[in-house]
Amino acid sequence: MKKPDFDDSFCNGLTQLLEWRRDVRHFKTTALPDGLLDTLLDLACLAPSVGNSQPWRFVLVEDDNTRQAIRENFQRANSQALEGYDGDRARLYASLKLEGMDKAPVQLAVFANEQTEQGHGLGHQSMPEMLRYSAVLAVHTLWLAARAYGVGLGWVSILDADEVSKTLAVPEDWKLVAYCCIGYPEQEDDTPELVKLGWQDRQADCRKVLKR
Amino acid sequence: MKKPDFDDSFCNGLTQLLEWRRDVRHFKTTALPDGLLDTLLDLACLAPSVGNSQPWRFVLVEDDNTRQAIRENFQRANSQALEGYDGDRARLYASLKLEGMDKAPVQLAVFANEQTEQGHGLGHQSMPEMLRYSAVLAVHTLWLAARAYGVGLGWVSILDADEVSKTLAVPEDWKLVAYCCIGYPEQEDDTPELVKLGWQDRQADCRKVLKR
Repeated sequence: MKKPDFDDSFCNGLTQLLEWRRDVRHFKTTALPDGLLDTLLDLACLAPSVGNSQPWRFVLVEDDNTRQAIRENFQRANSQALEGYDGDRARLYASLKLEGMDKAPVQLAVFANEQTEQGHGLGHQSMPEMLRYSAVLAVHTLWLAARAYGVGLGWVSILDADEVSKTLAVPEDWKLVAYCCIGYPEQEDDTPELVKLGWQDRQADCRKVLKR
Repeated sequence: MKKPDFDDSFCNGLTQLLEWRRDVRHFKTTALPDGLLDTLLDLACLAPSVGNSQPWRFVLVEDDNTRQAIRENFQRANSQALEGYDGDRARLYASLKLEGMDKAPVQLAVFANEQTEQGHGLGHQSMPEMLRYSAVLAVHTLWLAARAYGVGLGWVSILDADEVSKTLAVPEDWKLVAYCCIGYPEQEDDTPELVKLGWQDRQADCRKVLKR
């Protein structure tokens, strides 16, 4: 294939993509057009992976009862999390909408196969977490690709992960990495909802660079 | 800011970016132009993070002795990894170049601050790994941005991570997520080196979707 040239116009577009990529919790119920989810999953599979192990595994959650079980899992984990806050912070936490399972037309669980033989163990003997990190890279690739196509993604992490695995009856060696709500967003924004609602501003600490 | 329109031309460019993003181990020694690393780190800080906790922490490794200590760390971890292979697979493993520390002009360690108060704990009480995953998302953002600007990145994971933390004298609560070699690649390719050298092909298992 011909070597691509990423010009200024593309680089500016990429910056905008990163600026406008949001964690979406408010979805329209509109279905994705036929084939779009396949396109996005094909792109996700271009993600880097340790030893080229490609350890991501996708589970599409379609059954209403199964979705309900996952939503109840979230509600229990979220109630438990709320108990850790007091006063104004607790009130603010309770007011946040932290998942879009009520409306998102697509719900996708992403797992890492921690026992895959693909990649022949390369690169994760001293850092076994690299297989899970590779699945994280696939989720992020999916997220950015979705945004480019006008589709929003919300990563739900307030869950008992082992219970999700049981509910979805996946192989024992699969570890839940992300539960993704996917669909068209009700609104588009370049400011994170947690900034707008006063939970956590962007800040400069993370941009400092230590030198050694 | 005005809502961007990601048109077909941008989406095609993004697909090419994902196809041509490689894990680079062969670097030119050419320095990056002034300001480019700052631009890339600014973009990396647009990565998603759990609760907007922005837990990534960057350490630029510049000192020759420090670089040498990290390289020796790699060599020990790599020798140990090699012991796990036999016969042809061992010979092939030994022939692979798995890091670019010999030439890469920029070496950047990325950590997750596991005790950050930013984000106020949101989203990682039931899945504490979300802070590390957020730092992974920053590395991937940096990686894609770098590629768009013609710069290669190689993620070295064959390391004793705790020893890297000691060598770099980072705060106790920081967990190493990635050690990145960064610079202009000697070659550009849309095929992973591990595919070309016969270690691990792309395969279709990871693209299957279970339905539940």
